[in-house]
Amino acid sequence: MPTQVAYLGPKGTYAEQAAGYLAKLEKLSQPEFIPCCGLRSVIEHLVNKHCEAAVVPIENSVEGGVTTTLDSLWAHPNLFIQRALVLPIRHAFISSGSLNEITEVLSHPQALAQCTDWLSNNVPNAIQLPTNSTSEAVRMVKGSKFRAAIASKTSSEVEGLENIAYPINDVAGNCTRFVLLTNQKSDITGDIASFAFSLHANKPGALLKALTCIADLGLNMNRIESRPSKRELGEYIFFVDIDLQEKSIDTKDRLNKLLKPLCENIIYFGSYVTSEMTLD
Amino acid sequence: MPTQVAYLGPKGTYAEQAAGYLAKLEKLSQPEFIPCCGLRSVIEHLVNKHCEAAVVPIENSVEGGVTTTLDSLWAHPNLFIQRALVLPIRHAFISSGSLNEITEVLSHPQALAQCTDWLSNNVPNAIQLPTNSTSEAVRMVKGSKFRAAIASKTSSEVEGLENIAYPINDVAGNCTRFVLLTNQKSDITGDIASFAFSLHANKPGALLKALTCIADLGLNMNRIESRPSKRELGEYIFFVDIDLQEKSIDTKDRLNKLLKPLCENIIYFGSYVTSEMTLD
Repeated sequence: MPTQVAYLGPKGTYAEQAAGYLAKLEKLSQPEFIPCCGLRSVIEHLVNKHCEAAVVPIENSVEGGVTTTLDSLWAHPNLFIQRALVLPIRHAFISSGSLNEITEVLSHPQALAQCTDWLSNNVPNAIQLPTNSTSEAVRMVKGSKFRAAIASKTSSEVEGLENIAYPINDVAGNCTRFVLLTNQKSDITGDIASFAFSLHANKPGALLKALTCIADLGLNMNRIESRPSKRELGEYIFFVDIDLQEKSIDTKDRLNKLLKPLCENIIYFGSYVTSEMTLD
Repeated sequence: MPTQVAYLGPKGTYAEQAAGYLAKLEKLSQPEFIPCCGLRSVIEHLVNKHCEAAVVPIENSVEGGVTTTLDSLWAHPNLFIQRALVLPIRHAFISSGSLNEITEVLSHPQALAQCTDWLSNNVPNAIQLPTNSTSEAVRMVKGSKFRAAIASKTSSEVEGLENIAYPINDVAGNCTRFVLLTNQKSDITGDIASFAFSLHANKPGALLKALTCIADLGLNMNRIESRPSKRELGEYIFFVDIDLQEKSIDTKDRLNKLLKPLCENIIYFGSYVTSEMTLD
C-alpha cells in the first residue's frame, strides 16, 4: 500500500527534496508525494488524516524557528516527530532576462530575507514581491524578462529557466531542519527529544525552575524557543530540544515527574534521529 | 527643528498609528513621519542617520517576536529603545465587492495568519496573497470586486473603501508591542530593561548559568526569546526583558559583572517605559 506524504508544493521546492530524502531514510513503502499550497494546509492534511505523513520545515539557521510548525505541534497533540533532516539551502537567481533588466524579484519571504545583502548589491532598485513558496515564484516569472525568482537550482530546471547567479544566499552555511510528522508515536528512541511546556504562571523564576529540572537529570538542552500562548502578551510556551546521549527509555517519565507540578501543560513530540545531507 | 520618525508605510498602517502615539508620549518636537517600504528599510533609515527616530513592531501576542527587529537590534549596537507601546490590533475585511464574490485576499503575512479561522469559515476558497504591508494590500484591492484586503479600519478610510466585516482577527486580545528607537542611549530609567547575549559555547547548562545570574540579582525575567546566530544551526542569541521594579540605576553594572564571564557578547538596548493604548 502506498504511503501518502504531504509537503509544501508545488514541485521543485526544498520541502519536496526533503520529503524525498526523509521517505528513503525512513524506508516508507511506495511513498506518494502530495504537494499542498501553504504550510498550514500541509499540516491540516495530516491532522485530518488525508495522508499518513507530512514533511515540514521546523528551523532555519538564518531565519530561526518556523512558527507555523511550532504552533501546530502545540495545537495538535496527536502529531509526532518521526525523523529529522538538515538540508543545506543554496538559492539561485532565476529568470529568462538578464541581471540589469530585472525590476521585480519574487520569492517566499524567508528566501528573500536570506538574500538581503546580495539583492541590495546586485539589484538595489528591484521591488521584492513575496510569494507562498519558492517554486510558485519560479512559475510566476516564466515568460518575463523583467522578473526574477529566488529558488533552488532544481526548480529552474522544472520550468526550463536560467540560473543567472548561484548561490546567492548571504550566509554560506544556510540550512533548514525538516521533520517527518505522523499521527503515531514512534517506538524508536533517537538522539534528540522534543517537547513543549507552558508554566502555571509567569512568576519570577518559574522558567528557571523548569530548566533546573532538565539540568538536574543531566540532560543537555540544545535549543529553547518561546512562542506566545496567543491568550495574552507576556504568556509563553517554551519549546525545548534535549540531547539523549544515553538513549534512556524512561527519560520522558523522569522529566514528566519533575516538570508536571510546574507546568500547566506539557506535550511530548517524540524522540528521533537527525540526519545531515551534504550537497553534491 | 522637526524630528524625523521613520515607520513601516504606506499611510494607514498600524505602525503609523503607533508612531503617532509614541511621538506624543515621548513629546518629540514637531514630529515628521517618514513612511518606508519594508521593516528593514525603516531600520536602515535610522542606522544611516537619515532620521532621528524609528518606530518598529517588536512582538505580537499571536505571532510572536518580530524577527527582523530582534536581529537588527543585535546587528546594530548603536540602536536603543526609548519607549514602548502596546497597541490593540483589530483587523477589518476591506473590499468594494461583497463577501460571496471574493476570490483573492491580500495582506501582510502576519495579518493573514492572525485571521486564519475567520478566512477558512467565511471565504474558504479564496486564494491568500502576501503583501509588504497591510496598507499596500488596501491599495492593491482598490477598483476590484473580487479582491479583499485585511488591514486596519483607518486604512480603508484613507482609500475610500468599505469595511465588509470587523473585527475579523481570530484572537480578540490581539495586540502588538511597538518600540521607538533612536541612536542615543536614554538617561531615563523605565520599568523594563532589554538586552541580548550570546554564550561562549553551547555547553550543557550554559544558558541555565546565565539565567541563574539574573535570578540571583532578584530580577524577574518576563520574556526570553532565542534567535539563531546565523553562523551555524544550534548556536543562538538570547533576547531577555527584565522587570525593573526598584529602578536601580546600577542594575546594568551588576548584571554585566555576573554575565560577562559567561558570554561571548552582551548588548544592552536600554531601559524604558511601556504604555498601553485602549481602543476607542
